[in-house]
Amino acid sequence: MRPQFILFGDSITQQSFSHGGWGAALADTYSRQVDVILRGYSGYNSRWALFLLPHIFPLNTSTKPPVAATIFFGANDAALLGRLKERQHVPVEEYKENLKKIVNHLKERSPTMLKVLITPPPIHEEGRRAFFRASGEILELPERTNEMAGIYAKNCLEVAREMDLPSIDLWSKMQEVEGWQTKFLSDGLHLTVEGNAVVHKEVLRVFSEAGFCPTEMPSDFPPHLEINENNPEEAFEQQHCSAAAAI
Amino acid sequence: MRPQFILFGDSITQQSFSHGGWGAALADTYSRQVDVILRGYSGYNSRWALFLLPHIFPLNTSTKPPVAATIFFGANDAALLGRLKERQHVPVEEYKENLKKIVNHLKERSPTMLKVLITPPPIHEEGRRAFFRASGEILELPERTNEMAGIYAKNCLEVAREMDLPSIDLWSKMQEVEGWQTKFLSDGLHLTVEGNAVVHKEVLRVFSEAGFCPTEMPSDFPPHLEINENNPEEAFEQQHCSAAAAI
Repeated sequence: MRPQFILFGDSITQQSFSHGGWGAALADTYSRQVDVILRGYSGYNSRWALFLLPHIFPLNTSTKPPVAATIFFGANDAALLGRLKERQHVPVEEYKENLKKIVNHLKERSPTMLKVLITPPPIHEEGRRAFFRASGEILELPERTNEMAGIYAKNCLEVAREMDLPSIDLWSKMQEVEGWQTKFLSDGLHLTVEGNAVVHKEVLRVFSEAGFCPTEMPSDFPPHLEINENNPEEAFEQQHCSAAAAI
Repeated sequence: MRPQFILFGDSITQQSFSHGGWGAALADTYSRQVDVILRGYSGYNSRWALFLLPHIFPLNTSTKPPVAATIFFGANDAALLGRLKERQHVPVEEYKENLKKIVNHLKERSPTMLKVLITPPPIHEEGRRAFFRASGEILELPERTNEMAGIYAKNCLEVAREMDLPSIDLWSKMQEVEGWQTKFLSDGLHLTVEGNAVVHKEVLRVFSEAGFCPTEMPSDFPPHLEINENNPEEAFEQQHCSAAAAI
């Protein structure tokens, strides 16, 4: 009945319904309008994401496709070779190709679906060190660097340009604010409540610009103040809802 | 692909994805397992909810029914006759009948669906007065009382007993804690972050007892640590996922 947004990504998406999360905030913003569906996979890079595509965005189905999707990978792809998290590393050229494969698959699912690419957030290397130190692991060298995340972000934006898609340059956006390192990042990589608010705001802006403005979209079922308490059927009939006469 | 929980109720459900909300917390708890679908309708009472049933829980459809639903009405039904919010009032006997109609409709949708009845929360009358005062309205007499909410809660629990359904006695549960009036209620009726946490905990307890324990339910797709970086296909094949060979 309702349109769907799908949030497709890694842990920063999976955690987006935690306290203050950007996914939950979107679900709240569109609470009577859109179902916000969580498809976040902690630790996944763009290579592993490809295996999920036929399941999350099935082709040859009669079910309605989502009207919009966020594609938010890269934070794990950018893990450095030869460092602690190298198993998640994906070379930047392959990352770019994988993003294109994801977008093309979504296009095949639905040409009209809004596809929004989100770059990985910046990395606070000292935050990462502190995170690992807290679990008893001493990093000689960081497993991720902000510079490398920036390279992946740049390539993500290039894909968006090449494929004429809206994008969110989270890597740059967050670094515009003084103190971004701890204001927006809880462990040098994942988001604080304030970091989540940045993502919510940016996604909402892009969605609104693309025709999904919550103040202009229809809500399902009449607002309660439009229901005549002496004749409630009326309000529901006006919205093309059959009365619950059969019940 | 994934099972669904539907949260069906009034504003306390509609707002359940706001900051710290119980619905968002459930979506987070079951983030790789279940889609938590929001069907909250601010201001609705159980009478108006009946009009929504054929749309939210359609019969004669081939789509999979939700595996569980929360039914959370009563806070508006309990608005007092002859007071500010009397248009939302539903007599308690009718409230009880309406709950039964809702449950019977859900049974028809799916006999195996878990149906959980939640009572309205307690009312803090002074909190309601303060809320209206802040918007320039002076209440001579409260539009809701805690005593009346308790009568509706009792009747909700009776329906659960009569129909052999699990229930959550939120009205009593909250009042066990000293300072519940402002600890759990933001305006004498709606929930604070701590009040939301009570609902999340109770729903999780009931769902877990009924077979939806998040630590025992399967997660979709392998955890990233189970993916062999040199042979990722393997992990996905083991989960009966076809490889994304065609992409």
